[in-house]
Parts: sequence; structure tokens; C-alpha cells
Amino acid sequence: MKIRRQNQTVFFKNEPKIIGHYSIVGPKEGKGNLRKYFSEINKDDDLFGQKTYEKAERVMIERALDGAIKDSNLKYDDIRLVMAGDLLNQIISSSYAARSFDIPYVGVFGACSTMVEALALSACLVDGGHFDTIACATSSHFSTAERQFRFPLELGNQRPPTSQWTVTGAGSDIVSIKGSGPKILCATFGKVTDYGINDVNNMGAAMAPAAMNTLVTHFKDTNTSPKDYDLILTGDLGKLGSEILIDLMEDKGYKLGLNYKDCGQIIFKRNQDVLMGGSGCGCSATVFNSIIMKKLLSGEYKKVLFMATGALLSTTSSQQGDTVPGIAHAVVVEGVKNE
Amino acid sequence: MKIRRQNQTVFFKNEPKIIGHYSIVGPKEGKGNLRKYFSEINKDDDLFGQKTYEKAERVMIERALDGAIKDSNLKYDDIRLVMAGDLLNQIISSSYAARSFDIPYVGVFGACSTMVEALALSACLVDGGHFDTIACATSSHFSTAERQFRFPLELGNQRPPTSQWTVTGAGSDIVSIKGSGPKILCATFGKVTDYGINDVNNMGAAMAPAAMNTLVTHFKDTNTSPKDYDLILTGDLGKLGSEILIDLMEDKGYKLGLNYKDCGQIIFKRNQDVLMGGSGCGCSATVFNSIIMKKLLSGEYKKVLFMATGALLSTTSSQQGDTVPGIAHAVVVEGVKNE
Repeated sequence: MKIRRQNQTVFFKNEPKIIGHYSIVGPKEGKGNLRKYFSEINKDDDLFGQKTYEKAERVMIERALDGAIKDSNLKYDDIRLVMAGDLLNQIISSSYAARSFDIPYVGVFGACSTMVEALALSACLVDGGHFDTIACATSSHFSTAERQFRFPLELGNQRPPTSQWTVTGAGSDIVSIKGSGPKILCATFGKVTDYGINDVNNMGAAMAPAAMNTLVTHFKDTNTSPKDYDLILTGDLGKLGSEILIDLMEDKGYKLGLNYKDCGQIIFKRNQDVLMGGSGCGCSATVFNSIIMKKLLSGEYKKVLFMATGALLSTTSSQQGDTVPGIAHAVVVEGVKNE
Repeated sequence: MKIRRQNQTVFFKNEPKIIGHYSIVGPKEGKGNLRKYFSEINKDDDLFGQKTYEKAERVMIERALDGAIKDSNLKYDDIRLVMAGDLLNQIISSSYAARSFDIPYVGVFGACSTMVEALALSACLVDGGHFDTIACATSSHFSTAERQFRFPLELGNQRPPTSQWTVTGAGSDIVSIKGSGPKILCATFGKVTDYGINDVNNMGAAMAPAAMNTLVTHFKDTNTSPKDYDLILTGDLGKLGSEILIDLMEDKGYKLGLNYKDCGQIIFKRNQDVLMGGSGCGCSATVFNSIIMKKLLSGEYKKVLFMATGALLSTTSSQQGDTVPGIAHAVVVEGVKNE
């Protein structure tokens, strides 16, 4: 099979596979809906034994990378590249975590779309024969995100009803040409989309148009429709953003049904006071690398369209009156076939 | 020729080429050593007609991308992907610039190594057949970097003698499998290296060990030595960092001679009061995309080893007492052969 390229979607001919994965979360996530599925839960300490939340986030990425490499039954030497990114300024969680590994490193940034950006790029690099095996990772931490993007935690600010709760967690995947595991069939790279939202407490609304844009493009490029997937999973649109996406898709002639889910809506329980749901790079990273990977590995899911969305703002852009552009990247992952 | 992979270096079999380039700089750079070579100089206005320096930096990236696409004689539709990154928090210069182009976008971050990180990744993606043509870009602005990483400009702080001057400029390259131009032969992806420097006003010293690490690896992987290159060009080590690199390389048995240059040392004139020289993503991006590309296109340079270095810190990591890890990525670019 030749590599076919159709507009924004890249198809892989050499079957890049996810041969290892890991998810690590904090106490609140460990009490949520997916508590049975995470690889590791720190039940008591969202500082992970560190003095600052930033160092805690770094530890989560380190453990996620470490855990995924172990899960793949490989040694550090077998990993040719670490590709990671996160929400903190200058992606320090990723870069400092990469310092602990004697492996070449490239930093990527797509805000909360980073997990899929890394999976998509890694699949290209592995498929193209440039790297055998790549470790992808991303993270977020409620307390680092709050104080960097919003207010000091100590202020105890009231949260607006459209706000989401940044997931404290990290996820990692080992993408390889060798070994066995769910295959990455294709990737759709998204465009920056801006519908003019400037409410930084309504990220779901800012990201939904980008999600629609990439999703419609994906269906057209691959000549598929929502019913062709066991699961269509968005990253962290949350309750409001998901509803907007469903509406926008309906306007475009696509009906998202019961096979559509959003990581931000399923990670926490209804009574956990998270308003519109979970968010952050760690949201899609930990949901995908827990229950979704489990069901891909068991063959329960045969075909999952995993699309993470990112809001490409900073505090500076908001302070200068800029609206919030969004982006969404998607990969199609095929479950393991049981003979 | 099969793709050979040797440790950290990736060789390209399908001859990815740089088929278009552009550099844009501000007034100070426009009075420097390379004033004859830049594609565009804004002589009077480092705000580029904008209300804030951050918006000015964004305009530079937009113009660099636009100029490089025009230089390649392609249309926007021919560009399959924009890959960009910069120093600002959440790489807003790149993401907001990408909003102006109706082209898929991936953000990357390697601090001041970003230009080479983007070139190396793009060469992989183009070589692997996943994208025909990719536009890479990066930028920095003295005034956005100063107020984000150091002090408000209005304070008029004295600059320590080891400090460097962030270049106001942006550069862009079009990497393609089609067309003609200097070829990217191989890329060496660097590891995060930390020698324990914690002086944020001495980036050259923090980055030199990473430069040494990647350079030694590159020579070993490719079985070459410094004399095999017409030019070995580092990104922005500056005067002190370059001297440290020369010493570190000598300890490893490699003598860097007259064919070794640093972008930070050549961009400004001696009397421009820039202490250790230029720095920032825009430093290597504008030097490479002016005089170096000119000499690669004319065939004066036959083989250039272009290695940009990045300091992977943030103000938060510094405030929390972390040392400054560095990284360096390298590409080998072959000049156009004149029959």
C-alpha cells in the first residue's frame, strides 16, 4: 500500500503501533469514574513528594514515561526519541522530565491537543523509517495551571459556571514499528480556527469550532462517517463544548451519536464539583491511556477516532485583547484483533 | 540508498530541499553585520506598526512565512503544514501567526534551537512521504523576551557582562521534496544536557555542553570531523558560549577552527553594545536565512553543519532554584551544485 495523502490526513503504510502506555493521576482523579483504569494513582499527595506543584508535574511525566517504557518491555536504549509537551511556560515539565532520560528529545506544543499532536507526529516519524520507537508524553496539573493561567490558589476565587477543572495527571505512549499493540492507521492535522471567543473561562466554546473543522475534514479525507467508529473521543471540550460540537456537526450534516464521548466529561464524577468537566493536556492523555487503551487492547474497540483539542492562548494574549484560537488533531487507532 | 540510522542521527534518502527562505529583522539588526543579506529590514519601527511588541513578533512570523512561500514560487495551497515555535509563553507568536494561514499547523518548542528542530522534523516528514512541502518558522523579539524573561524595559536595568541581546527577527524555510535548493542530508537530534549552570544571564555557558554533546555525537554518527564542513554554525552561544564549546570540543579531541562560527557573534557589530552577542530563536533563524542560505544557493558553501542550541528554562524553573538544561539539534545542509 502506497502512502496516500488526501488534504489534511496522512495514512500510514508501515503500521505504527502503540506498544506501551501509562497513566498517572492525582487524588481527585483517583476518586473519579476511571479510578479502576489508571496505571497509577497518588491517592494522598498531589505534590507527589515535591516542594512545588511544578516539580510535581515533572515527576508525573517522568513516571509516565518510565511506566510506558516498562509496559512496552523495552529498555531505555531502545527508545530513539522522546516527544513531549505541556501547558507550562516553555514546556518545563516536559523538558526537565526529558533531562532524566538519556534519550534525544523534541518538544512540541499544541496546548491540550498535545497528546494527539505527539502521537500523530511520532506515527509519521516511525512510519517513515526515521525512528524505530518513540516515547510520547504530556501532562497537566490543576495547581500549576490555576496559578499560571488564572489566579493564585490562595485567593479562593469563585469559578464561573462555564469553567473546567484541569486534570492532574500525565500519560505516555510508546509508538513503534516493532512489537504489537493497537495500530495508528492515519492522522488528521488540524488548522488554527478562531470563532472570536474571548472568554478565557469558556475554553470548550473556543475549541469546539476547531474540533468541528478537523472532524469534518477527517470524515471527508477518509470517506468515513461517525457510524464507522466504535468511539469518537474528543479531548477536553467538556459538557458545553461537546454540546456545541454536536450542534456544529449537525449543521454540517453529521450526526454524532452515542459513540461520541469527551474525555473531560467522563474522567470526573458528577458530584466532584468540576462544572463543565475536566481539561488540560493530562485529561485526554490519562483517559486515552487508561480505559480507552484497555478496550483497544482487549479488542472491545475496533476503531477509535481520538481527537484532542487545544486553546492556543496565553495570559499575555488575553490581556492584550486577543480572541482564543483553537486547534484539533486526530488519529485513528485500531484495536487489537483477537483470533 | 536505504535510510541508515546511527544512534542519534537520521539520514535522508529522498533529498528534502530548502526551496524557499525569508528573514525579517528590526532596526538594530538592520544596522548590524548582515544588513545586506536580510530579506526585509524594518528600519524605523520595532513595533512593526502594532500596538504591542508581542503583536509585532507575530507580524514578523507572518511576513517570514509569507515571504518564504513567495520565494519558493508556491501558493498557500501547496504548503501542507506549518511547523513553528517561539520563546513566548504558549508559543503565541507562532500559533497566532498560523491563524492567518489556512494550513494545518503543529507547534514545536526547543527554545533557541527551534529553527533547527523544525528543519529536522520537517525533513523527516517530507523524506518519509507524509507531506510534500512544509513551512518552518520561528521568531524572537528583544522587547517581548526582556519583559517576559527578565525585567520590564522601563526599569532600565543594567545588563550583566555575560548577557546576550535577543534578536528581533523571524526566519522561515520551505522544506520540500519537490523543486530545487540546498539539500538537507541528515539531522542529529540532541539530548537534554545540564551541567548545573543556574545563572540566567549566562545562557551561552548553559547551552555549550549540549552543543558539545550533539556535535561529538554527530561527528561519530556520520564518521566526519570538523574539517569536512565548509562551515559549522552554532545558533546563539555568543562569545563566551562559543569559547566554552571550543574548549569542551578540544577536551573531546576535536579542534574547531576558522570554519566554526556562531550566529550570535556575527549578527551584530562590535560597537552595538550587545555584550556576548545575539540570542533568541530569531538569531539563528535570520542568520541562516540570510547570508548562509545565500552562500548555499551560490555554491560557495558546499556543506554546512547548522546546529542551534536552546536553554530549556522558564522564569518559574529559575525562581524554584532549578539549573538550566540545554539542548542542541543539528542538520547538515548541502549547497547547490553549479554545473
